[in-house]
Amino acid sequence: MQPPVEPPDRPSPDRPSVLTPAQARALFRAGAEPVTTAGWCQGYAQANLLAVPRDIAFEAMLFCRRNPRACPLLEVTDPGDACPHETAPDADLRRDLPSYRVFQYGRPVAEVSDATPYWRDDLVAFLIGCSFSFETALLGAGVPVRHVEQGRNVPMFVTDRPCVPAGRLAGPLVVSMRPMPPEAVSAAVAVSELFPAMHGPPVHVGDPAELGIVDLTRPQFGEPVEFAPGDVPVFWACGVTPQAVLMAARPEFAITHAPGKMFVTDRPDSFTPA
Amino acid sequence: MQPPVEPPDRPSPDRPSVLTPAQARALFRAGAEPVTTAGWCQGYAQANLLAVPRDIAFEAMLFCRRNPRACPLLEVTDPGDACPHETAPDADLRRDLPSYRVFQYGRPVAEVSDATPYWRDDLVAFLIGCSFSFETALLGAGVPVRHVEQGRNVPMFVTDRPCVPAGRLAGPLVVSMRPMPPEAVSAAVAVSELFPAMHGPPVHVGDPAELGIVDLTRPQFGEPVEFAPGDVPVFWACGVTPQAVLMAARPEFAITHAPGKMFVTDRPDSFTPA
Repeated sequence: MQPPVEPPDRPSPDRPSVLTPAQARALFRAGAEPVTTAGWCQGYAQANLLAVPRDIAFEAMLFCRRNPRACPLLEVTDPGDACPHETAPDADLRRDLPSYRVFQYGRPVAEVSDATPYWRDDLVAFLIGCSFSFETALLGAGVPVRHVEQGRNVPMFVTDRPCVPAGRLAGPLVVSMRPMPPEAVSAAVAVSELFPAMHGPPVHVGDPAELGIVDLTRPQFGEPVEFAPGDVPVFWACGVTPQAVLMAARPEFAITHAPGKMFVTDRPDSFTPA
Repeated sequence: MQPPVEPPDRPSPDRPSVLTPAQARALFRAGAEPVTTAGWCQGYAQANLLAVPRDIAFEAMLFCRRNPRACPLLEVTDPGDACPHETAPDADLRRDLPSYRVFQYGRPVAEVSDATPYWRDDLVAFLIGCSFSFETALLGAGVPVRHVEQGRNVPMFVTDRPCVPAGRLAGPLVVSMRPMPPEAVSAAVAVSELFPAMHGPPVHVGDPAELGIVDLTRPQFGEPVEFAPGDVPVFWACGVTPQAVLMAARPEFAITHAPGKMFVTDRPDSFTPA
């Protein structure tokens, strides 16, 4: 029996992979909050959000430049402008993500589905490439994506590798982890290398202790994911790194996405800014 | 008769093409001021300098990001740090260039060989790729470089093309111009395209009026250069663009290189930052 075909004018989160970015953003704006946006809007680039006051925006931009694996910039807005003109000109960064985190002096003080009440006129938004963007290509190359198979958020871990600091901003690298059979690793590297603005190739394959990760079943962000027999862990630099930096450096104020619940852009997944 | 061979421990501006970057910087620090650094230290990347107070550094960095053809960033320093750790860790940006311009409220108020007395603790230095860096490759591909042949500074022109603004910073694109035989244009495009951090391929070939340029014999920066019979003008985006922006936007203070008198880095001419 065929599954019912969803008419394109009735978007539904039941088949999120075929939604357009505008449809997905409309659902999030209306309050939908999936476990993760992994698997949503296949073929489109997804982005991490870091919004900081203008006072620290130069340091944030310098931090991203000095740590391009963790923080590849897709777009930077003008202070106070919540519209990402380059990557999704119809969007509103204050309410088009599924969920936000509000940080004060390094502490997450709120998790909200609409950040409008917290937004400030001096905020500069940094959109940072997300590894979800190359998962369609991974699947196409025969690489399994366990967290999507299992309907979970990707597991993310704080490592013992320091980022290159920029002024007041310093902190550890965060990585996302995907288990896969050893024979898939080569394809996973080759595919993700083609997505330099989405973190590019893995930073490590194999022993989590090499990154200072003690327990793969206890990620600091996202959810644990089941390994299939023989799977090895593969680690990519992650756009949640700025959140670990906020916690370490404790700037006065920031708004980010909730880990794994990304901003879906109108750009193709292979987008690379000039 | 062979020209005398200069021993490597006795650097001299008589044969600037074979100097190392450190030797060239030492000469400039001691007061040498050539007409231009074009042709110096072949094989090494040269850079434009824009140093602005921290207060406007975010806008300057955003401007560079939004105008990558004119302002490809090679390095950004921390506020107050005059050492370019990534591109020339032994250098001092305050005195290792042949000549500087000091801007106050958009007016060039001084041209000096040592900017140390004007430097401020809140200055952030932006090093921007320079098209001199691909001239060795142009020569290698059989493309003549007229201003080097004629011992002149490259001619630079303010165009009627606006840059993409960033906050208070807005202004016109500046281009450098190289005359060459029409049959050399294809090689010039192919070669410069391989140097994306040094302005990449030309922005225009042929009619200067297309860029709003009225008179090729009267450049706004640098010197006029003689055309050989049949030569056509080829225009590249130029790292003097920020100086035109300073004049248009009139921020409180800035220090730049004097046009054509660049910072010579320790990086190879094909350097592309991560």
